[in-house]
Amino acid sequence: MRVEAVDFFYLAMPTIFDIGDGSQDALLVRVQAGPYVGWGECEAAPLVSIASLICPMSHSACKPVIASVLGQPLDDIADIARIGADVRSNSADLLQTDHTLSGIDVALWDLLGKRLETPVHTLLGYKRAYSKVCYASVLFGDTPEQTFHKAQRIQAQGYRAAKFGWGPFGRATVAADAAHIAAAREGLGSDGMLLIDAGMIWGDDLAAATQRVAILRDAGAVWLEEPFWTEAIAAYRALAPRIAPVRLAAGERCHTAAMAIQLMEQADLGFIQIDVGRVGGISAAHAVATAAAERGVTYVNHTFTSHLALSASLQPYAGLQEHWLCEYPVELQPLARDLTITRIEPNEQGEIVVPDAPGLGIQPDLSALQPYVIDVEIRVRGRTLYRTPALSA
Amino acid sequence: MRVEAVDFFYLAMPTIFDIGDGSQDALLVRVQAGPYVGWGECEAAPLVSIASLICPMSHSACKPVIASVLGQPLDDIADIARIGADVRSNSADLLQTDHTLSGIDVALWDLLGKRLETPVHTLLGYKRAYSKVCYASVLFGDTPEQTFHKAQRIQAQGYRAAKFGWGPFGRATVAADAAHIAAAREGLGSDGMLLIDAGMIWGDDLAAATQRVAILRDAGAVWLEEPFWTEAIAAYRALAPRIAPVRLAAGERCHTAAMAIQLMEQADLGFIQIDVGRVGGISAAHAVATAAAERGVTYVNHTFTSHLALSASLQPYAGLQEHWLCEYPVELQPLARDLTITRIEPNEQGEIVVPDAPGLGIQPDLSALQPYVIDVEIRVRGRTLYRTPALSA
Repeated sequence: MRVEAVDFFYLAMPTIFDIGDGSQDALLVRVQAGPYVGWGECEAAPLVSIASLICPMSHSACKPVIASVLGQPLDDIADIARIGADVRSNSADLLQTDHTLSGIDVALWDLLGKRLETPVHTLLGYKRAYSKVCYASVLFGDTPEQTFHKAQRIQAQGYRAAKFGWGPFGRATVAADAAHIAAAREGLGSDGMLLIDAGMIWGDDLAAATQRVAILRDAGAVWLEEPFWTEAIAAYRALAPRIAPVRLAAGERCHTAAMAIQLMEQADLGFIQIDVGRVGGISAAHAVATAAAERGVTYVNHTFTSHLALSASLQPYAGLQEHWLCEYPVELQPLARDLTITRIEPNEQGEIVVPDAPGLGIQPDLSALQPYVIDVEIRVRGRTLYRTPALSA
Repeated sequence: MRVEAVDFFYLAMPTIFDIGDGSQDALLVRVQAGPYVGWGECEAAPLVSIASLICPMSHSACKPVIASVLGQPLDDIADIARIGADVRSNSADLLQTDHTLSGIDVALWDLLGKRLETPVHTLLGYKRAYSKVCYASVLFGDTPEQTFHKAQRIQAQGYRAAKFGWGPFGRATVAADAAHIAAAREGLGSDGMLLIDAGMIWGDDLAAATQRVAILRDAGAVWLEEPFWTEAIAAYRALAPRIAPVRLAAGERCHTAAMAIQLMEQADLGFIQIDVGRVGGISAAHAVATAAAERGVTYVNHTFTSHLALSASLQPYAGLQEHWLCEYPVELQPLARDLTITRIEPNEQGEIVVPDAPGLGIQPDLSALQPYVIDVEIRVRGRTLYRTPALSA
């Protein structure tokens, strides 16, 4: 069996707002081999990943991503690893490559799982899948009152954990941040697990982050996520002991397993957060999960989009019982909600479990998606290199 | 003065060959502010960088690169730093961003230098520019005989150093590699400095690299470049003591200064090679050069394209006397040769010095470039987001 087609579909809401909500658009990936179809998703900047799929070659280490995928044998999981290595080698000087590969890798796993009638997590070698405690992942409100009401709603819906991020946090005074965090804690109640996401707001400014240590500690926050840019490793390492027992979380922007492992080792993280749609797919994410387990760092998914992406993000650590937390987006745009027929809903304990079905176990809702499909055309030297294909199974 | 226009021009040879020659295409960047024009270049995959310049926003941390550049004040060098920080923050989830920013940053420095009637290296704070010893940078021949003749020609042209890379090296037997290296040494003569570039051929396979240690040492090679992927830091660290006194060189694929500094610190490099067209431009490269000087690692440019890129690549370490070597491409495709009216030619000692003229001191040859301009059109939702503009000053 060989990979016969790789198609990208740019989906978007009619209006994109300037907020930290990654569910406003999506890049859906469809791979075909023999009678099978696999689905995946790349995170962010769909047009750029489309360009990297089909761009003209620059030289031998800068080829379009599709050149290393189309026509390749796909019979077992070693084929997925080989395709990934070929992509990274043949497109080494094309920076976007890792994001583009991510969605393709996910679709290859989905396809192979369907063919072998096996869930992806079983193909990865896990004997069983453990349920994960969902943390409801939302943006801060514009005001502390809005943050309070969001927290209250999350608590009422039965979630045991919540993460507030981006929005006004870190942009004004320490007192303003304290008011938001106090509001979140009050809304959640004293038992709710509180996580805070600073969205890289302090760059590499250790002092600015340190000013928030007391309010985070007093509120009993479990983690502070991304106080700094991913590359500001020295700032992370310096903050970690100052902020204990609050732990640091980061990693969503890692685009290779090696980068995530290095971050985990050097930034003194308590939690490593991996986005399957960026790190290179399920293959790379599984390598990070394995490394995290060995190093006593807790692996957590990063997912702020569809339930297709959610299933893909759970597979790499489904069988790791001690890695028990998962990000669960609860403010999805209609596009991301409509993307799949299959849903992964929390049970009464606020927990989810990865689908026990072939591949990712998720069926995309192709007819619901039609209105979101963005018409794209890329012409080079008068020749059409990409035109949005028809979205069908 | 504000940035009024940012334009990208995709240039390419009529046919692109599947060889490790990065001079087969180019992405020329033109920035305008007031009456001034600055020029820069992004390395590799022009179509993808064009897409990242103008793509629709995905969310607040995934905006098109141009959104953080157009309309920004540009009066002194702090403005360039601020624009770079804004681009990286507002386009953090767009992986291609660093490559795209690179050419823009170079053009901003060129423009500001012209306005202030000052060479870029002076704006960077260097009191004078030191000449650099050129190493002639070429690909291995297909056969040892071809490699021998290349080396002989380089020696006859007065170069004191030469680098051979890619092609058949590392792909067949150790004996085949030994024949190529012996041919290179014979052609250069015993005095010529010999550098070898493995082009990441061994991935993270330490054993494969170790098999070549003796032949490199016997040939008196000064460095072995990129035996492994950039991320295979453990392999680099393990190879370094085994291969001494030959030193390791790497870094051309680093896309941030932080990544290069980390590589330098952890991979036990003798030489850090920075491509200004990938690392984030002159600003990021200058940060790496400063860090290299502090750490006793020798900074070297990575340049396999035009003399515009060559001038940009020399500026960041022009004033560092102890960093005395430079890559000088001698097998440029006509496109890369034709790109500039100004040339940077080696003197009789085989040395070059960065132009002592405002900005980069390089005048692009716009009329010669017209035949290389590639017509590109990107349409999204029926609207043209990019069409190749007219190439003029």
